[in-house]
Amino acid sequence: MAEILIAGVGATDFGDHTGRTGRELFAEARSSALEKSAVPRSDVDALYYGNYMGETAERQSHQAPLMSSGVGTTDLEATRVENACASGGYAVADGVRAITSGEADVVLVGGLERMTPLGTEETTAALSRAADELHEGRPGLTFPGAYALLADAYMERFGGSREDLAHIAVKNHANATTNPKAQFQSEIDVADVLEAPSVADPLGVLDACPITDGAAAAVLVSGEYATENGLEPAVAITGSGRGTETLSLQERGELTRTRAAESAAQAAYDRAEVTAADVDVAEVHDCFTIAEVLALEALGFYEPGAAITAARDGETTRDGTLPVNLSGGLKAKGHPVGATGVGQLVELTTLLEGTHPNADAVPDAKVGVTHNAGGTVATAAVHVLEVAK
Amino acid sequence: MAEILIAGVGATDFGDHTGRTGRELFAEARSSALEKSAVPRSDVDALYYGNYMGETAERQSHQAPLMSSGVGTTDLEATRVENACASGGYAVADGVRAITSGEADVVLVGGLERMTPLGTEETTAALSRAADELHEGRPGLTFPGAYALLADAYMERFGGSREDLAHIAVKNHANATTNPKAQFQSEIDVADVLEAPSVADPLGVLDACPITDGAAAAVLVSGEYATENGLEPAVAITGSGRGTETLSLQERGELTRTRAAESAAQAAYDRAEVTAADVDVAEVHDCFTIAEVLALEALGFYEPGAAITAARDGETTRDGTLPVNLSGGLKAKGHPVGATGVGQLVELTTLLEGTHPNADAVPDAKVGVTHNAGGTVATAAVHVLEVAK
Repeated sequence: MAEILIAGVGATDFGDHTGRTGRELFAEARSSALEKSAVPRSDVDALYYGNYMGETAERQSHQAPLMSSGVGTTDLEATRVENACASGGYAVADGVRAITSGEADVVLVGGLERMTPLGTEETTAALSRAADELHEGRPGLTFPGAYALLADAYMERFGGSREDLAHIAVKNHANATTNPKAQFQSEIDVADVLEAPSVADPLGVLDACPITDGAAAAVLVSGEYATENGLEPAVAITGSGRGTETLSLQERGELTRTRAAESAAQAAYDRAEVTAADVDVAEVHDCFTIAEVLALEALGFYEPGAAITAARDGETTRDGTLPVNLSGGLKAKGHPVGATGVGQLVELTTLLEGTHPNADAVPDAKVGVTHNAGGTVATAAVHVLEVAK
Repeated sequence: MAEILIAGVGATDFGDHTGRTGRELFAEARSSALEKSAVPRSDVDALYYGNYMGETAERQSHQAPLMSSGVGTTDLEATRVENACASGGYAVADGVRAITSGEADVVLVGGLERMTPLGTEETTAALSRAADELHEGRPGLTFPGAYALLADAYMERFGGSREDLAHIAVKNHANATTNPKAQFQSEIDVADVLEAPSVADPLGVLDACPITDGAAAAVLVSGEYATENGLEPAVAITGSGRGTETLSLQERGELTRTRAAESAAQAAYDRAEVTAADVDVAEVHDCFTIAEVLALEALGFYEPGAAITAARDGETTRDGTLPVNLSGGLKAKGHPVGATGVGQLVELTTLLEGTHPNADAVPDAKVGVTHNAGGTVATAAVHVLEVAK
């Protein structure tokens, strides 16, 4: 893969931004990333932009040119990517590819979602469109219901308990307490999670990520551009991978593994020439607690069936051997769908460059991974980030 | 640009497919393209898929993995692209880029739209989301209204008449009479167009493309893959370009030129190392008659102000020096939004390889161009196709 450097990142706070427009939120993230990058706006060749439900939430499709024109030049291309909750991760992957192809030197990647204006019921309906409408949506399977099926299947095969899952939520809330951009900056304990109202058994409301507004952006540059322009970004994207699986759960051979994420991870590791053992820190897609378990196994950090106790055993906590979701994760940082994959990039970049408020947990980290999943992991995008040499 | 060959193309009939699902329509186009390509399904590395309003029309977002899993292998990546009416053209451009990057050898590009289930009123609302919601949609500007503004501005600056525009519709209907895939296979005359009910003055209903269901797909392969596998596709994509302009009309310096298409054309010509003068045949985005005029000027076939009489003067008719929209165009072939850009590729490929029912109009054509526009040309994708050497 060509040398891809992360010249600047930016994001809004994640949370309730009622009263602000999507373009306003994205402008904040975009400007922040561009300013930090020190790249002149006229040098931006392309925008790849992730958004999931703008048609519904803002009555605005065709958002890419809306978001690119604020760069201050129209001499760039702009493309919206939609792969459900992995829209942001795919925008990053397409941005990387634009540079790898030699067709772009500077690419802005970004994502946005406004969800709170819709309210809970309409948001749930919009999210259900990420599942197979014919085989899942129409029969009435909700998104939490789908993940509850995955949790049931996992625990039936491998064991594990609601307590094990609760430790994941507790860990991610703890991490978010020191992340000022996170939606929830409050600690919870295992009893809170277990006693929370059920959403879809075995998952309770504290096993689930919230409804969130937010935007994130990053400026990617080629190694050649950085050299020519005297830029010295601290972090590089050394691997980018994507994977796919059937949209409906019923068509899959098994429910306890996420093959799309396995494929994406393998492709990203191969391109980066690293293995799971090289990874020091990870931001993974914990839309539900069980999703973090599946992510850790797909990324090769744990054998199938072994990750469910990782948080409980302290291995993935702030002080553990492999801190996971130091940002707070989707669970506590929030999950503005189209922005999430780019938000993970923002968090991991700052963790590796040492500017993140939780960077002291991983002072020697050299290699990090982001894992972004669409729907019930019918799509996944994985990126390997490394401290630049 | 790397060598990109079009190994196979396929499309459904365009028209009213009430009663068929989107996945069924796309499967027809996909299977047709894959069968013609002779590429084993397991060799497909990626799907780039254009769709505009699936959230609304089918309550189905996250369509890329749904459409890729029918390839018969899940060992591929799948990404949905949404840039309004240019979604298909951008899917093609991203497919080209995937091969150029060296990350893929075989890419399926495709697009789908189902519009008829929504009915006219809801379809109009969905289409209006391709314009700027804040500055255009909310104040009540409809999509035909926006193009009427462009027509007004054009005729005020350069002259031209409703009769001139009518000749474009007449030409494209005439071309469609011999295209069995076209939605309208009936001739119309200038009086029909002028007497048709007004949609948004100066545009009448016969200046506008219809509401259409349809799907289209193409298999792109690298030159290296073709050589290694003994494939000899007749047509290559030698240039791919994209351009962007402000989403809202009010932010543009002028309304009589489409800068996004000019940028896209320049980028595509540069990569193909051709000029407008080399082009023998074109499929352009005539969602309204005025749009064809703007397209011909943006592509450099005519100076600004000069293309409005092209059809009337017989220059772009079937027997003209530069036949445009031999397929029937969006006007008569139909405009299933997300499929249109890929459909243009399907039509132009078969025109150049001599298998299109209207190929006898361009027996010596070596170079063709597709022009696909999003919204009021806030985005555009242009591709140069050439008979492979």
